[in-house]
Amino acid sequence: MAKKRTKKHQKKSGLAPGSVIYTGEKSDKKLFLEVFDYTPEEYIEKELNSIEEVFDFKLTDCVSWINVNGLNHVTEIEKLGIHFNLHPLVIEDLVSISQRPKIDEYEDYLFVVLKMLYHDADENIINEQVSFILGPNYVLSFQESEGDVFGAVRDRIRQGKGRVRTMQSDYLLYILMDAIVDEYFSIIETLGYKIEDLESDIFEGSIEETATKDIQELKKEILKVRRSIFPLREVISRIEKDESNLIQQRTKTYYRDIYDHLFQVTENIDIYREMIWSLMDMYMTTISNKMNEVMKVLTIMASIFIPLTFIAGIYGMNFDYIPELHYKYSYFILWGVMIVLFIAMLIYFKRKKWL
Amino acid sequence: MAKKRTKKHQKKSGLAPGSVIYTGEKSDKKLFLEVFDYTPEEYIEKELNSIEEVFDFKLTDCVSWINVNGLNHVTEIEKLGIHFNLHPLVIEDLVSISQRPKIDEYEDYLFVVLKMLYHDADENIINEQVSFILGPNYVLSFQESEGDVFGAVRDRIRQGKGRVRTMQSDYLLYILMDAIVDEYFSIIETLGYKIEDLESDIFEGSIEETATKDIQELKKEILKVRRSIFPLREVISRIEKDESNLIQQRTKTYYRDIYDHLFQVTENIDIYREMIWSLMDMYMTTISNKMNEVMKVLTIMASIFIPLTFIAGIYGMNFDYIPELHYKYSYFILWGVMIVLFIAMLIYFKRKKWL
Amino acid sequence: MAKKRTKKHQKKSGLAPGSVIYTGEKSDKKLFLEVFDYTPEEYIEKELNSIEEVFDFKLTDCVSWINVNGLNHVTEIEKLGIHFNLHPLVIEDLVSISQRPKIDEYEDYLFVVLKMLYHDADENIINEQVSFILGPNYVLSFQESEGDVFGAVRDRIRQGKGRVRTMQSDYLLYILMDAIVDEYFSIIETLGYKIEDLESDIFEGSIEETATKDIQELKKEILKVRRSIFPLREVISRIEKDESNLIQQRTKTYYRDIYDHLFQVTENIDIYREMIWSLMDMYMTTISNKMNEVMKVLTIMASIFIPLTFIAGIYGMNFDYIPELHYKYSYFILWGVMIVLFIAMLIYFKRKKWL
Amino acid sequence: MAKKRTKKHQKKSGLAPGSVIYTGEKSDKKLFLEVFDYTPEEYIEKELNSIEEVFDFKLTDCVSWINVNGLNHVTEIEKLGIHFNLHPLVIEDLVSISQRPKIDEYEDYLFVVLKMLYHDADENIINEQVSFILGPNYVLSFQESEGDVFGAVRDRIRQGKGRVRTMQSDYLLYILMDAIVDEYFSIIETLGYKIEDLESDIFEGSIEETATKDIQELKKEILKVRRSIFPLREVISRIEKDESNLIQQRTKTYYRDIYDHLFQVTENIDIYREMIWSLMDMYMTTISNKMNEVMKVLTIMASIFIPLTFIAGIYGMNFDYIPELHYKYSYFILWGVMIVLFIAMLIYFKRKKWL
Amino acid sequence: MAKKRTKKHQKKSGLAPGSVIYTGEKSDKKLFLEVFDYTPEEYIEKELNSIEEVFDFKLTDCVSWINVNGLNHVTEIEKLGIHFNLHPLVIEDLVSISQRPKIDEYEDYLFVVLKMLYHDADENIINEQVSFILGPNYVLSFQESEGDVFGAVRDRIRQGKGRVRTMQSDYLLYILMDAIVDEYFSIIETLGYKIEDLESDIFEGSIEETATKDIQELKKEILKVRRSIFPLREVISRIEKDESNLIQQRTKTYYRDIYDHLFQVTENIDIYREMIWSLMDMYMTTISNKMNEVMKVLTIMASIFIPLTFIAGIYGMNFDYIPELHYKYSYFILWGVMIVLFIAMLIYFKRKKWL
Repeated sequence: MAKKRTKKHQKKSGLAPGSVIYTGEKSDKKLFLEVFDYTPEEYIEKELNSIEEVFDFKLTDCVSWINVNGLNHVTEIEKLGIHFNLHPLVIEDLVSISQRPKIDEYEDYLFVVLKMLYHDADENIINEQVSFILGPNYVLSFQESEGDVFGAVRDRIRQGKGRVRTMQSDYLLYILMDAIVDEYFSIIETLGYKIEDLESDIFEGSIEETATKDIQELKKEILKVRRSIFPLREVISRIEKDESNLIQQRTKTYYRDIYDHLFQVTENIDIYREMIWSLMDMYMTTISNKMNEVMKVLTIMASIFIPLTFIAGIYGMNFDYIPELHYKYSYFILWGVMIVLFIAMLIYFKRKKWL
Repeated sequence: MAKKRTKKHQKKSGLAPGSVIYTGEKSDKKLFLEVFDYTPEEYIEKELNSIEEVFDFKLTDCVSWINVNGLNHVTEIEKLGIHFNLHPLVIEDLVSISQRPKIDEYEDYLFVVLKMLYHDADENIINEQVSFILGPNYVLSFQESEGDVFGAVRDRIRQGKGRVRTMQSDYLLYILMDAIVDEYFSIIETLGYKIEDLESDIFEGSIEETATKDIQELKKEILKVRRSIFPLREVISRIEKDESNLIQQRTKTYYRDIYDHLFQVTENIDIYREMIWSLMDMYMTTISNKMNEVMKVLTIMASIFIPLTFIAGIYGMNFDYIPELHYKYSYFILWGVMIVLFIAMLIYFKRKKWL
Repeated sequence: MAKKRTKKHQKKSGLAPGSVIYTGEKSDKKLFLEVFDYTPEEYIEKELNSIEEVFDFKLTDCVSWINVNGLNHVTEIEKLGIHFNLHPLVIEDLVSISQRPKIDEYEDYLFVVLKMLYHDADENIINEQVSFILGPNYVLSFQESEGDVFGAVRDRIRQGKGRVRTMQSDYLLYILMDAIVDEYFSIIETLGYKIEDLESDIFEGSIEETATKDIQELKKEILKVRRSIFPLREVISRIEKDESNLIQQRTKTYYRDIYDHLFQVTENIDIYREMIWSLMDMYMTTISNKMNEVMKVLTIMASIFIPLTFIAGIYGMNFDYIPELHYKYSYFILWGVMIVLFIAMLIYFKRKKWL
Repeated sequence: MAKKRTKKHQKKSGLAPGSVIYTGEKSDKKLFLEVFDYTPEEYIEKELNSIEEVFDFKLTDCVSWINVNGLNHVTEIEKLGIHFNLHPLVIEDLVSISQRPKIDEYEDYLFVVLKMLYHDADENIINEQVSFILGPNYVLSFQESEGDVFGAVRDRIRQGKGRVRTMQSDYLLYILMDAIVDEYFSIIETLGYKIEDLESDIFEGSIEETATKDIQELKKEILKVRRSIFPLREVISRIEKDESNLIQQRTKTYYRDIYDHLFQVTENIDIYREMIWSLMDMYMTTISNKMNEVMKVLTIMASIFIPLTFIAGIYGMNFDYIPELHYKYSYFILWGVMIVLFIAMLIYFKRKKWL
Repeated sequence: MAKKRTKKHQKKSGLAPGSVIYTGEKSDKKLFLEVFDYTPEEYIEKELNSIEEVFDFKLTDCVSWINVNGLNHVTEIEKLGIHFNLHPLVIEDLVSISQRPKIDEYEDYLFVVLKMLYHDADENIINEQVSFILGPNYVLSFQESEGDVFGAVRDRIRQGKGRVRTMQSDYLLYILMDAIVDEYFSIIETLGYKIEDLESDIFEGSIEETATKDIQELKKEILKVRRSIFPLREVISRIEKDESNLIQQRTKTYYRDIYDHLFQVTENIDIYREMIWSLMDMYMTTISNKMNEVMKVLTIMASIFIPLTFIAGIYGMNFDYIPELHYKYSYFILWGVMIVLFIAMLIYFKRKKWL
């Protein structure tokens, strides 16, 4: 992914800063616009066809959530940005999907970028950029494509459950971010399972060939998740300290709650990271132990039969005068000697605990 | 455990923030309510049947300790929270047992979450969440289930031992937290024993098969204890700096004492952590040393008998003209040569210190 | 490179501080002077022959970009420095190419040093020092030699694209620095590819001989890139906090954008650094795995044939009385025994998963 | 030791905070009380029999050093504490020998705890807790038992050497602490010797069996010393910043001197720590090198004699028609061939540098 | 060296703080006093015989550089110190050569201690302590013995080159420190060469026996240089922030220049440190690779000849009825079979890439 991202960025380099260029994969996905406009008493939910219809919601007294899906529709997003008086760099960042999580404070709005992580149908981790513009009575959200973790938020607005309908746009931003952060728990949970599976596979020695590769892959996955989540801590803590009037004092308590959740997530990631490192060590000792076992088999076999073969060799010599050859019981005596030797060896190796 | 915790959290995601949901294991444990209400002169100790009986103790002039066991009784706890004017997020956190140790300061109460660690009958580490609400003249404590480390605290209140009956609720909170932190010492002591046992087992080579697993398990246990204890340092240090009137100046000295204890605990944990890492290294060298020993045996056996076998092979050949075969003493001379070779080899290996 | 750099520095030691000495490789490259002078309406682009012609551009009302290539022309650069009232240490640093990225604030100009990294035709990383002097209405840039990453900047000035022609010199400095930082993405992208190539080479075991060397080389390359880029973060963050009037408030937003980009770059470098360290571990386990495989082959061969050879040896002995020798089917029975032994061994090793 | 300490602490848990309990090993050592009382002109040195005799020295105008040995005499120390108006927690800490080095500032005295390290007769490191109470004109010192590093301090008071008799109690505290810190140098010097001895033992390969254990023991010793010394840095730096009048401005220069010494000590400890880690690595390579040597011997022996034995085996076969067997010089030619093969092998291994 | 230093310190412990004791190696080197006294117009250079002659230079209006060589002349240095009103601890530190680099600010002078590193004739790193006293119009410098890196500074004063003669004593201190820091570049350059030499030696496998030792020695050397240089960064940064009038504002720019140089040096040291750690890893893989090669030779030889020997053994048996023995072409057929087996083996090992 690192590869892809930098490649994308590459394409942009050489352009004027402020050029509004979509850096994601090209696609002809339709622009999908969705608006929630609500007061404590009532709410409107609409799917819009053109970006111009959105403009009206800027000035309503109600709280409006305008959700824009499809960052490839650059022109429309630029229009929207201009209508909402966004700084050129903000508009540029909205469609440039390789941002780090960050917050930029402007005079009459906050610009927040973060990463929405969720599993797709095949249990792969999807990493999608979500940007928010928090204005006095609206929240704009921008997603790469449809499909998100905001289902429960929509339900809550519709049903007037919880506090959401009675609060301002800053609380709306909070529940949207909270939904994203909650999903992180599910992501790291899966990572945790993977580590434990790998661990038992290594202990049982069942994945000899791919162990190193699996460990390395998991390590990279953790590094990527870490990179998507860690910077968000600073974002939240800057929201808490925000001095504009966009975030009200009473809402800050809620943001602190997100902060605590994030802390838990990042703490777990760091523990997983430490565990994955020791997996490598563990695997190394497992290999060494196996080699030890192999060597022991070789040594036992060789130590027992090489001397016996030597003895047999002695009496296979063709010297004219080997007195023992002519005694009647020599052969049987020799067998006796060899069996004694054999048993002595076995006892010796038993004592050394190699058997 | 990490697995379980995140799973639990999972179940909650999608719900409105502020939803009061018990995240621990379902159980039909009864709600157990216990109240201590005391002045320097006298004290009342009661077990209550319903949450409503607790309400009266909010307004008494005495210091009240209300101990609530059984976080699965969500409705009752919610009622209690509303009666004591707790913030919705606090009530939510009370029953959500996957919190990090933290302190939240509200206008007229402090909310403290920490982890109570103790050994159960089977010497397993039990990790239970305890929350405290410190009000002007009461302390509410919330535990997952009965069974705690507060026995001595109860005795002290009953017997009026020490300063507790003459002090305010902030001192009560202190002795409760002190009891928990004191138990940490016992926990890390056990960890210390386990490390030393493992260390000598590895030195003696008696646990070849399970060593890696044992080390890994111990490492995880230390990481978990660490995670439960470390954040508490910041909690205590924020209590010390607290500017509300809930914590009196003279009590802060006592909290500093807890802080010092915590520092000792965490210092020890970090030392154990470093030691467990070197255990892995030690184990690795132990394996390598053993392999060395195995290889030496093999090399000595092979080096001694392979040349001798070769010599025997020579005189087992069937050439028509091998002059040595016909000398009368050839056989005995050969034995002599072989014995000399054998001894020379032994001396050689002795010199190399392989014997 | 470390070697070269310190060597160069060496030559200077013993000289008075403030001595203006070129520390790069001697060369007879011509001095190349280029000037862009522009207003929103029009622009002049000139190549100049002598340093004196530059002087006039100091006082024009337009924004001037004076680009000086060829730091070996020390005398001319010194003249230029004196004309622009630069501090002696600044002039010294301009031609001393072993500077760390840094910013020095003087009363009426800023002095910024950074490293321009780009790939040459052979995909080697070129590390060239670029210094900027930002004055009220001019930017001086100093490069070791011709060839840079500013092509797009020139085009933008010529075509009046973007905001550049309408902004002041602080914005010009921004787009120059932005061009350099954008190029960093391409550099680390290549590093990422190299690591992944190395990783798959190691997994496939195809580079046995050179793996250690390749890893070590890559590690050094990353360390060098890191050293060129990391200090720049502090430079940018000091520009943002600058309190002189040279950087206008509205331009600072743009510098913050560079800062975010840099953060992404450095984050990636650190991830690559961690990955290269685990490559070494991976390689180590790969070696050990191979040795295990070698040992298994040896052990299997030896364990099967040594006992069989012993048996053959027995019946090669020349004792007068070996009853078995004279039974008619002995030889065939023996073959039977040996084949059974052989198969038993194979099954044993199959069970141990060595086959 | 960690084990012992926590065990001791254990015994206390469950008791009321503020309970004055001696946590060291039980012993019936007598209480030993020593007082120095001095002015620039004269001094009194006394050994006292009962704690009450000490009380008078609190109010003298002279500087008094009251040295209490024998922390098992809890009742006496408690009396002393009450007479000197010490906080209950201070009295508790005085006799609890498992404190971290720390400083607690009270209104009219400072309470300092540190660790006195010195070698006993058998070169073991003795780790004894020393506490100081610094009052306006007295210093109380508390030691576990007789035997300390203050001999030179006593001499200096007796002889009026240096500045001690002309300075206040803060200077007395300084020279006592300085004496303790000076002893640290001797301790880490010994650690340094031990590391270097171990290092050369490992290089010479003379301690195969115990190397891992020795390294581990040394590592633990360093960790323990580190833990005793590191927190002291913060103690001293807080003394320097102290704003009470107990530490005069002119004395602070002296404390800064201790601070510098401590810095040197801790720096050395960290270097030793790093060196002991690389000892482990070194030892690992030493083992591997030895195994290499063992393997080479085996390989050389086997590679030379196995083919020769094969050749001998060929001509030991009993086929009716083996033409070579009947040529007259076959045997001698074969010897020639074998000697040539032997020498070729030797040259081959020589070239590979295995010989 | 660590050993020696602590040993020296040892000798002092037990003495009163402030005792002026030379802690270096005893020697009867003569005291060497050198004075430069200059104004922009003229300068005096003198070698003095007695310490008293120095005293006059304290009050001249010119800038004076008084260079004292020979710290064993304790009495003279004490006299000098008293004449210049130095604090007793400063005088003590002047002759105690085991100081860390540090700066102490006193009312009317600065006391700076640093380490002068240079190569002696045998390319060993000499580590000599240099102390400076910066007064309003003089700089005192104290060296252990003659021989320093100040040659160029002397020349510059004599020839009036650069700014030195026109500036105050703070600039003199700067060029002296700059000369020392410049020499550090040469030191770390040599370290860099050593690492690269070691690296190629290890790659080529030419230093099997001493590699571990060489790596360890180099590691120690880097640790020592690091310890001498690192603390200096803080010294310089405190000079920059100094608020006394001893360092003028315009000179601070120069000190910042030293700071930048130091940063480069320390950055390089840390890179070298990281590289030396990976050298150890590299060496380890080199050993393992060699062992792999050894094992392969053994395995190939054994796998080829052990089965062949077995076959030969079969037909060496003395059974009465072995039909094959009597066929005419048996022997030649057997040779054919063995050659085919031999070639099959070779192909097998070729395919496994062991050949």
